[in-house]
Amino acid sequence: MKILIHEANVRVRYCETDMAGHVNNTSYFIYLEEARGKFFEERIPKPLNSFGRFILASTKCDYVNQAYYGQSLKISTWVSRIGNKSFSFGHSITAEDTGDLIAEADAVIVNFNYEEQKSEPISLELREVLESHLVPN
Amino acid sequence: MKILIHEANVRVRYCETDMAGHVNNTSYFIYLEEARGKFFEERIPKPLNSFGRFILASTKCDYVNQAYYGQSLKISTWVSRIGNKSFSFGHSITAEDTGDLIAEADAVIVNFNYEEQKSEPISLELREVLESHLVPN
Amino acid sequence: MKILIHEANVRVRYCETDMAGHVNNTSYFIYLEEARGKFFEERIPKPLNSFGRFILASTKCDYVNQAYYGQSLKISTWVSRIGNKSFSFGHSITAEDTGDLIAEADAVIVNFNYEEQKSEPISLELREVLESHLVPN
Amino acid sequence: MKILIHEANVRVRYCETDMAGHVNNTSYFIYLEEARGKFFEERIPKPLNSFGRFILASTKCDYVNQAYYGQSLKISTWVSRIGNKSFSFGHSITAEDTGDLIAEADAVIVNFNYEEQKSEPISLELREVLESHLVPN
Repeated sequence: MKILIHEANVRVRYCETDMAGHVNNTSYFIYLEEARGKFFEERIPKPLNSFGRFILASTKCDYVNQAYYGQSLKISTWVSRIGNKSFSFGHSITAEDTGDLIAEADAVIVNFNYEEQKSEPISLELREVLESHLVPN
Repeated sequence: MKILIHEANVRVRYCETDMAGHVNNTSYFIYLEEARGKFFEERIPKPLNSFGRFILASTKCDYVNQAYYGQSLKISTWVSRIGNKSFSFGHSITAEDTGDLIAEADAVIVNFNYEEQKSEPISLELREVLESHLVPN
Repeated sequence: MKILIHEANVRVRYCETDMAGHVNNTSYFIYLEEARGKFFEERIPKPLNSFGRFILASTKCDYVNQAYYGQSLKISTWVSRIGNKSFSFGHSITAEDTGDLIAEADAVIVNFNYEEQKSEPISLELREVLESHLVPN
Repeated sequence: MKILIHEANVRVRYCETDMAGHVNNTSYFIYLEEARGKFFEERIPKPLNSFGRFILASTKCDYVNQAYYGQSLKISTWVSRIGNKSFSFGHSITAEDTGDLIAEADAVIVNFNYEEQKSEPISLELREVLESHLVPN
């Protein structure tokens, strides 16, 4: 089975830079949230992807190289772990022009039942989608 | 009657600067929203100040001088106009260290009945509070 | 002569919404800055478009309708005024899905000589580009 | 020797919330950057604390409880590791009103010689300051 990697693109905005002349550390989390939002929308079918279903429990970013205003960045997203009530994403951010790795990141997502306000086991249907994107660490 | 001016303070954050080395133009609107939020909270008594009561219809900022990371900025806020269903704020932003005028701004606020989802006339009680801060243009 | 209008697109990000459930007022200024940046890059030839050439002196936004997470917004940008050392942009923001007008905005830009740190008259070459996008108010 | 913990306070801004009604995940990194900036300014004497001296190499945040508009948050910051050319911060974010733990975070900082654009060993003077704030993991 071919493993699927999700790709999203952002163009660095001026207000996402800081006085050091590069992209501010907080801006990368904007890009990562955007990439996950597109993953949910584009890869997880509607009934499995309701509002409040996926709660971010933890996120980490390692800054490898600087990025700059106007650069186009590619955020690759895959599933790095599938647990009982949670799973993890792996992300890499690369610059489209230079090919440089800009950052590596991960995110822990809790499978949440918003109506009942508690976490719940990942359904078989959702597990199947996640497994098709699984690249274990 | 003494006219009341509301004052709020912010310290410029690193991520609010941009690669030009100064505070990014979009950050000023963060400061202005923060100043209005404190005005609502500190100057308008609770029953008159319910969630969704004050809708921003328009805002403008004139950039006069640059501001920089770490500077403490004072945002002065007053009422510049009281209409039937809306009123306007005037704002000035000054740097605490240099005393420089950094920006002048205004905002048009609609008096909104959130339950009925429509604008409504400003009540006498609210008008009284607004009038005590009125500095007409 | 056909008047040129510049178009840029953004997709509303989750972090650009606020607890009122819609796009926060400050986020629109991010979109407008992004649209102007693309205008400068795509419409103004390189030698005329150096770093620090265009300084934002003032900006205003009228909020007409609410926008929401995930919506694709089109920002149309044109030149509304050409002065001696400054010019103005007009902007409209519309939702791609509903066609609704979301916001109307403008921005005053000073033509700045960054090396000498002072404003200077708009050159004939730049004026020509601006005139091709001129829709007077 | 008494271990020093640095404390910084932020008040949650409206634009830092999102449509889920709580503080957006990206906003916490704004608070953490602000806390580190104040640590550098308030705890590390000027000659040791030059522009570009401290580079963020990695950061992580675990979200424990939700925070809301208007809440005052206390960010506690200490040193969790001192290496040769880098050190780490530990952070906790708590709500002033409820006392709830909102988030736990850490950050890896590289000691950087900005003039020579390379990392360098932590000086004895800097090490002394860091050790006075050291709470090993």
